[in-house]
Amino acid sequence: MHIHCRQDLLLNSINTVLKACSTKTTLPILECIFIQATNNKLILVGNNLELGIESTIKAEVIEEGFIALEAKIFSEIIRKMPGETVEISSNDNFMTSIISEKSKFQIAGQSGKDFPALPDVEKRNSCKLNQLLFKDMIRQTIFSVAQDETRPILTGEMLQIKNNSFNMVSVDGYRISYRKAYLSIENGEVEVVIPGKTLAEVSKILSTEEQDEVAIYFEDKHVLFDLGDSKVVSRLLEGEFLKYEQVFSSDYETKILLNKKNFLMSIERAALISREGKKNPIKIEIDGDKMIITSNTELGTSREELDVELEGKELVIAFNPRYLIDALKAIDDEEVYIHFISSLTPCIIRPKEGDEYKYLILPIRVNA
Amino acid sequence: MHIHCRQDLLLNSINTVLKACSTKTTLPILECIFIQATNNKLILVGNNLELGIESTIKAEVIEEGFIALEAKIFSEIIRKMPGETVEISSNDNFMTSIISEKSKFQIAGQSGKDFPALPDVEKRNSCKLNQLLFKDMIRQTIFSVAQDETRPILTGEMLQIKNNSFNMVSVDGYRISYRKAYLSIENGEVEVVIPGKTLAEVSKILSTEEQDEVAIYFEDKHVLFDLGDSKVVSRLLEGEFLKYEQVFSSDYETKILLNKKNFLMSIERAALISREGKKNPIKIEIDGDKMIITSNTELGTSREELDVELEGKELVIAFNPRYLIDALKAIDDEEVYIHFISSLTPCIIRPKEGDEYKYLILPIRVNA
Repeated sequence: MHIHCRQDLLLNSINTVLKACSTKTTLPILECIFIQATNNKLILVGNNLELGIESTIKAEVIEEGFIALEAKIFSEIIRKMPGETVEISSNDNFMTSIISEKSKFQIAGQSGKDFPALPDVEKRNSCKLNQLLFKDMIRQTIFSVAQDETRPILTGEMLQIKNNSFNMVSVDGYRISYRKAYLSIENGEVEVVIPGKTLAEVSKILSTEEQDEVAIYFEDKHVLFDLGDSKVVSRLLEGEFLKYEQVFSSDYETKILLNKKNFLMSIERAALISREGKKNPIKIEIDGDKMIITSNTELGTSREELDVELEGKELVIAFNPRYLIDALKAIDDEEVYIHFISSLTPCIIRPKEGDEYKYLILPIRVNA
Repeated sequence: MHIHCRQDLLLNSINTVLKACSTKTTLPILECIFIQATNNKLILVGNNLELGIESTIKAEVIEEGFIALEAKIFSEIIRKMPGETVEISSNDNFMTSIISEKSKFQIAGQSGKDFPALPDVEKRNSCKLNQLLFKDMIRQTIFSVAQDETRPILTGEMLQIKNNSFNMVSVDGYRISYRKAYLSIENGEVEVVIPGKTLAEVSKILSTEEQDEVAIYFEDKHVLFDLGDSKVVSRLLEGEFLKYEQVFSSDYETKILLNKKNFLMSIERAALISREGKKNPIKIEIDGDKMIITSNTELGTSREELDVELEGKELVIAFNPRYLIDALKAIDDEEVYIHFISSLTPCIIRPKEGDEYKYLILPIRVNA
């Protein structure tokens, strides 16, 4: 293999596929970036067998071929190359030279034949989505993906297509995050569970340009995100996801409308006293047109007062402040509705207008 | 104690003294910030017995008094207060309430009487320096303060005043950093060793305003930095510092002039192959008007070529790249001279013009 290419394009492409390279593994080839020169293109691939990313850039190909290079040192070298262009060539012993201006490196590569090819996903069952919207949907749901592996299926997010609605749902046993988008065309029904880690990495390479789209292709065991210059293939999680529709009731005994930012800041202050990790709840009292938030631990006490619009009964309820903070931070609206049934049943946070998201949070039982 | 003050001033003041608060100690009072209300001022103090910082702000004092508050929770509460002003009051049981708008906290304080007072440094032996200049001098020398405690005196920097010259020197056994400034007036002779940690913290609170000055007062066991609104008192290190003057010889067999930025970037690239921590040296070959930098490890090889102006003999020498990188990063000049005597003796890096700094670095012996 022998190519010339632009340093900035190559570095960008390396940074994209690096997200799928293993860092600790018993299979050293998975710590490599696979590079293939063909047809005036350079194709880079990272693949940790859960997640694979492919990125393509333009290159001047002098001799076609492929090689696998240890991702860490390869990325560090390219990052520091002095010139605008880089020359890469490898010989039959996989010895690879990287040259830019008066700087020259030689590193030992590995045979590209040993590198695991990305699964071939059939481009049949698909949908298209704005990249910026998809990035937002991930941000607004990923925080409630389960962190522990006791129920592996919950370490992923359900992605569901039904008629022209595109839903994402995550559940960690204490809360549910739900986010919906409308698709411009009707699609076949889809219901898959995508690993949270995959979505976190995909989110990082999604464009923030208004017009860019991502095409998503679904198969039994894999999902493919096609972003144009790069492609992400991920394994799907297998198992039964929570039937979330049944849990979101529209009944309520207490319904309040309040300013999101003020509510968030008050909860954050109360959380200083309740101290995360110690699972001390904060208490919320809805008393006429006031919400009183209190916390009380060995550190001290705090008290906050907020204006709310109340419909229904007054109520006292307690929460882990972290769950409220995560949900409120994900919400861009200025005002939100919160529905309660009792102090022992979950509350539901909804936007004042529209139905794009809802968050369900379990309360903590406290003694009166 | 009962006061009202501005939230932003108080937060700023807390952030200043926080640098001297202990985080892990068997004396819980050292994890506190001492607060004293007196004469329409609020004085805050942090003191870990090595280093003490005092900061004063304006306040409306309703009742004079003092209290010690756990630094972490106090700073977190003040950081998140909603209003422009904050009200703090404490009762005889040290219970302290902190109020801003509709947010109210109560935390248990400790008796201010138990808080160790800052050492009283006599304002006799002193000098004045521009804060920005002092900040630069610290940055340009602190990296070669010894990290290990085998010779405790070397974990500090020597600060030396002689005639109208103000010198700072640090030594870690492999290299020496020297930085000089000229004082506008003659001062008494001073030679003290200040802990590196103190200088690191002082550097953070030094102003970047062109005209601000710091007054430094010296005593046998302590040094006081007076920055106007804040004061820093530090213990001095005791012991014999290196007689650095004898080590900086002005003899050379090889002297080169080269571009600092290109040299730094070449060394950084060569260091990718030599891999820090593994102590693999990089080799420098001065060959006519060229410098060839090579590194060679199990990872691969690298080769860099630079233009230099040579005076004297050609030379081959090897270094730990980290030491060269640290010194070159600290230098603001575009071109530097490097003096060598042989491949087994230290090199000295100097500015092309002036005598404000010099860096001495020991080579690594390698087999030809």
